[in-house]
Amino acid sequence: MSGEKYVFFFGKGSSEGNASMRNLLGGKGANLAEMTNLGIPVPAGFSIATSVCTFFMEHNEYPTTLESQVVEALRKVEDAMGRRYDDVGDPLLLSVRSGARVSMPGMMDTVLNLGLNDRTIRGLIEQSGDPRFAYDSYRRFVQMYGDVVMGAEHHGFEERLAKKKAAEGVELDMQLSAKALEELVGEYKAYVHQSTGKTFPDEPMEQLWGAIQAVFGSWQNDRARTYRRLNEIPDSWGTAVNVQAMVYGNMGEDCGTGVCFTRDPSTGERRFYGEFLINAQGEDVVAGIRTPQPINRESDNGSGLPTMEATLPACYQELVETYHRLEEHYKEMQDIEFTVQKHKLWLLQTRTGKRTARAALRIAVEMVEEGLITRETAVRRIDPDQLNQLLHPMLDPSAPRDRLAKGLPASPGAASGRVVFTADEAETMAKAGTKVVLVRTETSPEDIHGMAAAEGILTSRGGMTSHAAVVARGMGKCCVAGCGDVVVDYEAEQLSVRGRVVKKHDVVTLDGSTGELFYGDVPKVAAQRGEHYEKLMSWVDEFRTLGVRANADTPHDASVAVEFGAEGIGLCRTEHMFFDGDRITAVREMILADDEAGRRRALEKILPMQRSDFVGIFEAMGERPVTIRLLDPPLHEFLPHGDAEIEELAPKLGTTFDLLKKKTQSLFEFNPMLGHRGCRLGITYPEIYEVQVRAIVEAACEVKKAGLDVHPEIMIPLVAMAKELEILRKMTAGLVESITSTQGVEVKILIGTMIELPRACVVANEIAKHAEFFSFGTNDLTQTTLGLSRDDAGKFIPLYVEQQIFPKDPFVTIDPGVADLVRIAVERGKAVRPDLKVGICGEHGGDPKSVEFCHAVGLNYVSCSPYRVPIARLAAAQAALKS
Amino acid sequence: MSGEKYVFFFGKGSSEGNASMRNLLGGKGANLAEMTNLGIPVPAGFSIATSVCTFFMEHNEYPTTLESQVVEALRKVEDAMGRRYDDVGDPLLLSVRSGARVSMPGMMDTVLNLGLNDRTIRGLIEQSGDPRFAYDSYRRFVQMYGDVVMGAEHHGFEERLAKKKAAEGVELDMQLSAKALEELVGEYKAYVHQSTGKTFPDEPMEQLWGAIQAVFGSWQNDRARTYRRLNEIPDSWGTAVNVQAMVYGNMGEDCGTGVCFTRDPSTGERRFYGEFLINAQGEDVVAGIRTPQPINRESDNGSGLPTMEATLPACYQELVETYHRLEEHYKEMQDIEFTVQKHKLWLLQTRTGKRTARAALRIAVEMVEEGLITRETAVRRIDPDQLNQLLHPMLDPSAPRDRLAKGLPASPGAASGRVVFTADEAETMAKAGTKVVLVRTETSPEDIHGMAAAEGILTSRGGMTSHAAVVARGMGKCCVAGCGDVVVDYEAEQLSVRGRVVKKHDVVTLDGSTGELFYGDVPKVAAQRGEHYEKLMSWVDEFRTLGVRANADTPHDASVAVEFGAEGIGLCRTEHMFFDGDRITAVREMILADDEAGRRRALEKILPMQRSDFVGIFEAMGERPVTIRLLDPPLHEFLPHGDAEIEELAPKLGTTFDLLKKKTQSLFEFNPMLGHRGCRLGITYPEIYEVQVRAIVEAACEVKKAGLDVHPEIMIPLVAMAKELEILRKMTAGLVESITSTQGVEVKILIGTMIELPRACVVANEIAKHAEFFSFGTNDLTQTTLGLSRDDAGKFIPLYVEQQIFPKDPFVTIDPGVADLVRIAVERGKAVRPDLKVGICGEHGGDPKSVEFCHAVGLNYVSCSPYRVPIARLAAAQAALKS
Repeated sequence: MSGEKYVFFFGKGSSEGNASMRNLLGGKGANLAEMTNLGIPVPAGFSIATSVCTFFMEHNEYPTTLESQVVEALRKVEDAMGRRYDDVGDPLLLSVRSGARVSMPGMMDTVLNLGLNDRTIRGLIEQSGDPRFAYDSYRRFVQMYGDVVMGAEHHGFEERLAKKKAAEGVELDMQLSAKALEELVGEYKAYVHQSTGKTFPDEPMEQLWGAIQAVFGSWQNDRARTYRRLNEIPDSWGTAVNVQAMVYGNMGEDCGTGVCFTRDPSTGERRFYGEFLINAQGEDVVAGIRTPQPINRESDNGSGLPTMEATLPACYQELVETYHRLEEHYKEMQDIEFTVQKHKLWLLQTRTGKRTARAALRIAVEMVEEGLITRETAVRRIDPDQLNQLLHPMLDPSAPRDRLAKGLPASPGAASGRVVFTADEAETMAKAGTKVVLVRTETSPEDIHGMAAAEGILTSRGGMTSHAAVVARGMGKCCVAGCGDVVVDYEAEQLSVRGRVVKKHDVVTLDGSTGELFYGDVPKVAAQRGEHYEKLMSWVDEFRTLGVRANADTPHDASVAVEFGAEGIGLCRTEHMFFDGDRITAVREMILADDEAGRRRALEKILPMQRSDFVGIFEAMGERPVTIRLLDPPLHEFLPHGDAEIEELAPKLGTTFDLLKKKTQSLFEFNPMLGHRGCRLGITYPEIYEVQVRAIVEAACEVKKAGLDVHPEIMIPLVAMAKELEILRKMTAGLVESITSTQGVEVKILIGTMIELPRACVVANEIAKHAEFFSFGTNDLTQTTLGLSRDDAGKFIPLYVEQQIFPKDPFVTIDPGVADLVRIAVERGKAVRPDLKVGICGEHGGDPKSVEFCHAVGLNYVSCSPYRVPIARLAAAQAALKS
Repeated sequence: MSGEKYVFFFGKGSSEGNASMRNLLGGKGANLAEMTNLGIPVPAGFSIATSVCTFFMEHNEYPTTLESQVVEALRKVEDAMGRRYDDVGDPLLLSVRSGARVSMPGMMDTVLNLGLNDRTIRGLIEQSGDPRFAYDSYRRFVQMYGDVVMGAEHHGFEERLAKKKAAEGVELDMQLSAKALEELVGEYKAYVHQSTGKTFPDEPMEQLWGAIQAVFGSWQNDRARTYRRLNEIPDSWGTAVNVQAMVYGNMGEDCGTGVCFTRDPSTGERRFYGEFLINAQGEDVVAGIRTPQPINRESDNGSGLPTMEATLPACYQELVETYHRLEEHYKEMQDIEFTVQKHKLWLLQTRTGKRTARAALRIAVEMVEEGLITRETAVRRIDPDQLNQLLHPMLDPSAPRDRLAKGLPASPGAASGRVVFTADEAETMAKAGTKVVLVRTETSPEDIHGMAAAEGILTSRGGMTSHAAVVARGMGKCCVAGCGDVVVDYEAEQLSVRGRVVKKHDVVTLDGSTGELFYGDVPKVAAQRGEHYEKLMSWVDEFRTLGVRANADTPHDASVAVEFGAEGIGLCRTEHMFFDGDRITAVREMILADDEAGRRRALEKILPMQRSDFVGIFEAMGERPVTIRLLDPPLHEFLPHGDAEIEELAPKLGTTFDLLKKKTQSLFEFNPMLGHRGCRLGITYPEIYEVQVRAIVEAACEVKKAGLDVHPEIMIPLVAMAKELEILRKMTAGLVESITSTQGVEVKILIGTMIELPRACVVANEIAKHAEFFSFGTNDLTQTTLGLSRDDAGKFIPLYVEQQIFPKDPFVTIDPGVADLVRIAVERGKAVRPDLKVGICGEHGGDPKSVEFCHAVGLNYVSCSPYRVPIARLAAAQAALKS
């Protein structure tokens, strides 16, 4: 027999647990023990450890010693509260609640008022002097127990309650008489028997065992499992169960119950804030039938009701003292539940309070100023992802909404506008002052002008790193991608969601932070950063050692990036520039040329445009490094789609429809992701890369001559073989040398490569010989390592996440297999070139978990979309503090 | 000054080098030294080492000590030959020849007769007593030197020679008089001066230096570089230069020159075989103007000329004694060049003789029987790739041919037939008894019946592992793939190659071993294995430790595989069965079903068909293991292509054109290689895998009940995440258990996975927990590791091979990066499951270099197409002998 301790008593100023035992006792249990230890009045009770839950999951039975430990703890509770369970004169009643390591509000079951039966009800009536209260407690108990433990359908109780109210001619539950409630108890028990075939247990110990088992069992209910999946809580943690003496806030006007926060959870202001209901139980607050009273400031909820401070001043004072002690003890803003029973204050729960991002920043910064916590602690406490609330407008949480569908939260923020289906219309309408949401099955580089003009983008296909998602994030624009329930009908100019039709120019709202699509215009709250943000971010930059750069393709993006604190550009994609205005025609001319001479003619047109792009970016970035990637995508991405476009383009290029169509078809690829792209283009058509390098170097010289410092870094993409890089590096270095010496300007230009193929990782030692830097392109590296096309995987990724095959979307948080290859590449690369500069420029560069990995593996910097730069900075600081 | 020795003398029975110094002296030089050491009469000379060539490549100058070493060696040559260089009375003349580590016939330069000038010519006339011979030697020297060393265009000499013959009224060179030849010497020198601006050097030492430098320089000429690339000879090896005293076979009827082999190079028969020309120089044999005499058997060349044995019996006897000594010494069939100068025999070269595959086998086996070599040596000596000559028909090497184009040598053998452009026509015509060649831009699984019916397959796109290539190799059928110069015009029913048109039903010939396409019917020689093959292969199986299995999808393929010595099936692809006959309709019904019930209805139709396929394969393989891969390709591969097929199919499936088209489109993928395929189908549509597993297990039970042993292995493809395999393994194991226990049959079925994604390699430790075996799918692993689609890479792979970016086509020989991932996977997999069975079933399983890797990395077996099984067996034996 095991001597393991499973049951931990708390009560009367001392307990067997404490706050550090959260994993074993759950958050609630650990804090009840801690409060008890602090001498704060907590109804006595005991926690049954999470290890019992996991024992049960493994063995399908409970530990043999559990029963005796529970009985022993119950005796202590009786002693502490001065009442006996199952005492007909003055019965102790119990509550049984779940309590996992982290809060899972409302997901698991609770049973209150255990210990009531037809004998003990007499004692409760006698002690409370209120038969109505006693029978109300009894009938609530039978309903809860019958539902939660015995499995009788909820509606059966509701029907009987409604019937009873009708018979009594009353409207509200609380208007029912003691007699009616007593009758209901009998009717409920009969219903339970009838619907489950089992008799309602009168025996208190039997009641207790049933409740404990039911609450443990509720760890595995569908609701809880779904919640855990969504919140990434492992099934293996299990829940604890807390058995605690009942106290009552509904025994009269000298009773009440409330919830309060040690600081304002919405603004972060340092003041005691909360709500209170006189003569009520906790569930009445939740049910929302009665309007709660403000705890201390009448203006707080506009109810005009008197405050607790005024109503129960002594208890209020005790509560104020308690909250100060709790906040000082925990050094964190607390969310406190309490009950007043006949002028006696009982604390039922304390926990770290949830708060808005704005409040989180203010609380953290002010607590540092108050000397309560250190800067390190302040930085550790902010959830990086929560910063999005400050950087983008958000839907007003209180606003009503009409949800149509849910896709992927591809780019945060909120946007409303009229639905349009083409980039051209988006641009036209936006120019005319109308806000629009661009809806496409998927977007392509040709849609960029429409995306730029739209308030938000919705696609029915594609994942978190689809074109739409990547571009939208780069623009800081709200995007919902891969919204599979949306069927786009371009011809009919409408979209439909399970039969519901939205026509062109109807207004919709996107929530890019949740992936939701709403019909109509949902009110928003504006983005705001403020002084606390600035102060906290200045601490962040003190702690972090990892550099943070941005992915930016235009001077405008570059400026935004700098404003968000980017220390350079980690990825400037030259191909986005190729779609602008008239350039695409020159680009197409280049692609469709029959020989090198033809390509060179077209490239000569492109050269000055690219050069002026780079001048703009260099000017925006000043002395910060700018990594420019040479042309990467397969050429056919730039080609016309469909016969109509070919027809239009052919005369412009001086060719015929047939020839152009044939050329277009000849560039078709079965798997363009694995095709003729990246440095393969540079090898087969060296003139393309030559002109790009020329544009970069000439731009750098121009800016340098104008007196600004420049640090360009030329990045060669999709290298698999060291020889590819050797050849292209030689070409690049030669041009750099010849142009700078001709122009008489000294510019140091690094030449490096993007590591985005598994082969490049394993032969990184060979590649590093020719590279001054590596930048991990983890989007493509994820695709090739997992053999998973981000454009196609949308069909099965949801199922894969649901079945927990993917613990997380590998396009959002770096996959462990991909991470292993990155680690191998860093090791092998640095082995031959210890000063190799290593960074990451995939979408993972802005994901906090991935940033933590990047810090640990020793990268020099991460690069992400401008709007994620603050998040990456914070994540980098937290990673540094963690290590 | 370096003391390194660069020059190695040989002559008069002793030399400074020997046969083991091939890397330094080149093959020719090492063997001349060795022969000298054996006391065989070799004209004295010296070899200038390959290290001089590499020194020059690095420093662009020659070692400073070279000149003095050459002068010293020349003195020894003069002593040995009893003549002085530049002696006007009896001049020593020299030849300067290249000689690399391996033979590069005709690729580099040679200069003969060095030392002649207007003074020494007198001595030559005097010694030979033949002014015509002397002036002919002189004018040949001026021409060769002028061309090779000084760079005068060849045609200038030819024009002057032709003019001279016209003036003299003769037809042949040898009819020119001494006087005419003397005049020509002057005219040639004038031409050299006129065309190069330089005076022809008369000074013999200057001549010698010029020739030595020119021959070293010829290592870097275009011809030599191309040859090295094609034959995978590193540039860094460099060539040696051999300077040797001239001997003459053209000084009269007591002179001659010849080439002989110690065994018949065509049949391998043990007999002395060769050709001889009286009064001739070596270049006359090569020029082919005179018909050579047989060396000893009049019937050998049908010339009716007397044999050397009859003409110069003493020299012949000496030659016979010499050849016996050489073969016994080298223990290898020798290719010998000799010259007789005035009844004195001189050996000019001995080397390992080239031979046909048939001869190679016979020689190896007979040398073992003669006790000359061991079985190990015999096995080592056979080039695995050469076995193809015995396993497939080959084009008759002597047959004339009209080459149209060259593609990839995708599947060996030779085939002729009438051109057809559709699989259906191929089948119809073949049934009617007409041989056809199926020509497609690329093939798809629906073409399989046409491929099976055709003699050979030609595609204009796709690489070495394209569908056409893989399927053709599996069928042992000749295939030329990726023949980019061929433009297929389905509408016009013709193909064209740079303007030349081949119409439907024209006859073409394919050489699948070279990748060539010919117009018309080129005669072939049949496949033949024979007794020596059988004997050698029995030794092979003694030595090898690596198992060899075959990739086979049908009972017929399985039988062929067993006949070729396969020890099991390493890959049985279930999807090929899906295209047969009426099955495709049921398969399409399954794919297009709206729900699981619909899919199950269709699958029920497929089940009995799959079961009977497996019964056939199990019966063919008996107790040998059979690895069956569950469905792998993306579903849309099975869908109709184009509107016409959709129109035809819709009513069969009870649906409409529009619905079917929409469904087809919804299955489209941007990158199907990285899409919804492999085990992802098994996860999303478990019923598909369930039915396949059911078919396998029921088939196994049926065969077992009939008294045959069966060893099925179920392989789950494209696993990236351990959880995928965990889920599917559980399902599979459950079905195996329930079916075998219901049927009361005991069948052991292994469950494992295909490792074909980089992620699977790095997390092999997690995957191995759920796998009893790994089979490396190196085709897909190469695609994902290199980010290279085999269907699309054809556009740039040739350039990549040419620029030496790919040392070899990574789809043919395993790439080092891919190999590294395989090594990681084997290590990590075996770390958690030491008895893990590991094999390879990609196309690399039949490539000798890759087989060597598989042996070294500790795989249990390789699996390849049936026709490559003997090659893999031999390569495996060689790998075992090597390690």
